Amino acid sequence: MKTLFDCQQLDAQDRLRPLREQFSLPEGVIYLDGNSLGVLPKTAAARAEPGEVVATDSTSINLFKVLSAALTLAAQDAPSRKRIVSERSNFPTDLYIAEGLCKERGYELQLVEPDEIAASLTDEVAVLMLTHVNYRTGAMHDMAALTALAHEAGILAVWDLAHSAGAVPVALKAAQADFAVGCGYKYLNGGPGAPAFVWVNPKHADRFWQPLAGWWGHAAPFEFTPDYRPAPGITRYLCGTQPILSLAALECGLDVFVAAEVLGGMAALRTKSLALTDLFIELVEQRCGGHGLGLATPAEHAQRGSQVCLTREHGQDGSSSGAFAIVQALIARGVIGDFRAGDGQQRKDILRFGFTPLYIGFEEVWIAVEHLKQVLESGEWKLPEFNQKHAVT
Amino acid sequence: MKTLFDCQQLDAQDRLRPLREQFSLPEGVIYLDGNSLGVLPKTAAARAEPGEVVATDSTSINLFKVLSAALTLAAQDAPSRKRIVSERSNFPTDLYIAEGLCKERGYELQLVEPDEIAASLTDEVAVLMLTHVNYRTGAMHDMAALTALAHEAGILAVWDLAHSAGAVPVALKAAQADFAVGCGYKYLNGGPGAPAFVWVNPKHADRFWQPLAGWWGHAAPFEFTPDYRPAPGITRYLCGTQPILSLAALECGLDVFVAAEVLGGMAALRTKSLALTDLFIELVEQRCGGHGLGLATPAEHAQRGSQVCLTREHGQDGSSSGAFAIVQALIARGVIGDFRAGDGQQRKDILRFGFTPLYIGFEEVWIAVEHLKQVLESGEWKLPEFNQKHAVT
Repeated sequence: MKTLFDCQQLDAQDRLRPLREQFSLPEGVIYLDGNSLGVLPKTAAARAEPGEVVATDSTSINLFKVLSAALTLAAQDAPSRKRIVSERSNFPTDLYIAEGLCKERGYELQLVEPDEIAASLTDEVAVLMLTHVNYRTGAMHDMAALTALAHEAGILAVWDLAHSAGAVPVALKAAQADFAVGCGYKYLNGGPGAPAFVWVNPKHADRFWQPLAGWWGHAAPFEFTPDYRPAPGITRYLCGTQPILSLAALECGLDVFVAAEVLGGMAALRTKSLALTDLFIELVEQRCGGHGLGLATPAEHAQRGSQVCLTREHGQDGSSSGAFAIVQALIARGVIGDFRAGDGQQRKDILRFGFTPLYIGFEEVWIAVEHLKQVLESGEWKLPEFNQKHAVT
Repeated sequence: MKTLFDCQQLDAQDRLRPLREQFSLPEGVIYLDGNSLGVLPKTAAARAEPGEVVATDSTSINLFKVLSAALTLAAQDAPSRKRIVSERSNFPTDLYIAEGLCKERGYELQLVEPDEIAASLTDEVAVLMLTHVNYRTGAMHDMAALTALAHEAGILAVWDLAHSAGAVPVALKAAQADFAVGCGYKYLNGGPGAPAFVWVNPKHADRFWQPLAGWWGHAAPFEFTPDYRPAPGITRYLCGTQPILSLAALECGLDVFVAAEVLGGMAALRTKSLALTDLFIELVEQRCGGHGLGLATPAEHAQRGSQVCLTREHGQDGSSSGAFAIVQALIARGVIGDFRAGDGQQRKDILRFGFTPLYIGFEEVWIAVEHLKQVLESGEWKLPEFNQKHAVT
């Protein structure tokens, strides 16, 4: 007959024994009901921790939610503040959403240049709403510093991470940001029009619910009660039923970031991203000089996202900058970038190149610059087919 | 040498000549530039006509848009009206959205029973918001009659078509409805969580823009101007970038309705739908008597959607109705229906069966009722596994 000691020996020889450590077994319990309900792995508990982010809806709609919540919180804490400050060159949909809310609630939207932000943070301001990385220039704000400045002035900080998430490290809690939204289909590679995401600092999450209060944000959606009771935490920032197929594709995009963890995660991706954009800038400067190209993206790493924007000025005689045609000529050669027209204040059009470190290599950067050089030197971009904005083929 | 007459003879013998009629060729022009830009087929112009519907976002969010717009229009036309009327058993997310808007704008949400709607349409009411086909009972409102009653009282009518679109003929313009929203993933078969849709009566479309004013609703989204300028018509009811994968799946769902046109379209689908639900009701009455089942769905065709809801009462002693377990037992047999708990006022739980005429056959109805009969007669639904709401397997 086996003694207790015999059994302890068997355990000691059991090569599978270490797996036991992966489960949340209560002390003092011998759990012989795994046939009915298996014990949870320890990792499962971590995954089920109350989250701070939900993937849902579009960036515009999520911005409406958080900006509504921010204005309501600000109205409670400082009702005399009636202004939202943002950047004139913020992505327009952010400005449209803010403009709509300002009209509806009797606020004013003040648009400033980047170097005017600090001075604009007066005691009339309720919310500072910024996009972390600028879509036209690739310039990155110092989120922690600007959030701290805003808080010192009694202002809530709302960040749009459309061009940051997946491209640069983002530390919302370290920066003590108040609200954030972002996009699923850029550097997160969630597929065309992938659902966006929304984050609320946990200290605010339960103070108010956003006005798009649909059944997915209800504390008990399947009770089908006629009155709204918001779910705790970030869940109340959900609204209606979500497009599952598109969410599934977004999950595939996020899975790649999970896989990247063992390779150093976001820190390693950031290092590579900066190396790629440094290389592109260096090669363009060395090999594409004399063609009127400028650099809109900051040279300093701390101020750069994961894109490089080159500029070309319109002619003094009003002639086109050629930026659109140059991008078209590059696309015809298999180098996909895009074009953004200069705004009313700027005579410079923009050639925009994004460098996703998950899939872009250094050789590709070299080849892309070689194509740019050839396009500029050959003058092929002046061909009519590259200058028609609605090209006919 | 060929004469003009020779050439006319060639045209007359040309078997492809009739195809010419399919193109919008300007008179008096000989168009020899088809190598560069082909002439549009006549059908293309029709497809590009200004539409009245956009597929976008979720039903909840679209309801927020149209209800906001309706309240704003009502405030312009009749500022003293400060009430929204809806049905107590409306789908809850509709009530939550209305509740949120009422709080924000100082309105009152009045919930009534179906037979109290007419009497509730007083001069204090701004908007009547109803779901056309009730999600719990399958009862259908007379949209034209209720809209006319609302209009006589100076009230705007907002309709949720979640359980109507694709299931029953809907004539929004004939009914002179003001606004409507609906769901893409029920009878339209757009896939899980498919984007929803929104319709605005063209007479209202340009009077106001809804507050979720994102860049997809802008008149010129790619001009990236910092100020919002709403697109004309229904396009201003778009907001942010949409989930393309899910939209593509929705398009597949809609394609089946296009294909159904040659088979009689919605009229033929409605005829089949009523035949299917008539048959189900008849067979249940004939073969499942004596088991405490009632009928929540109206017998009259004009008041019935495309679902049949059976009821079972809770016991006088507080015991369960068994409706949940009966549905579980049916699912185990391969008959997929669902269960909705009775609300606080009703002691009746609901067994809900939807009949999509695109893919459900009459034989399937017979077999489903046979399974229901066997489940009831055998008492197998009383087995523990069908009574556990969170079953462990």
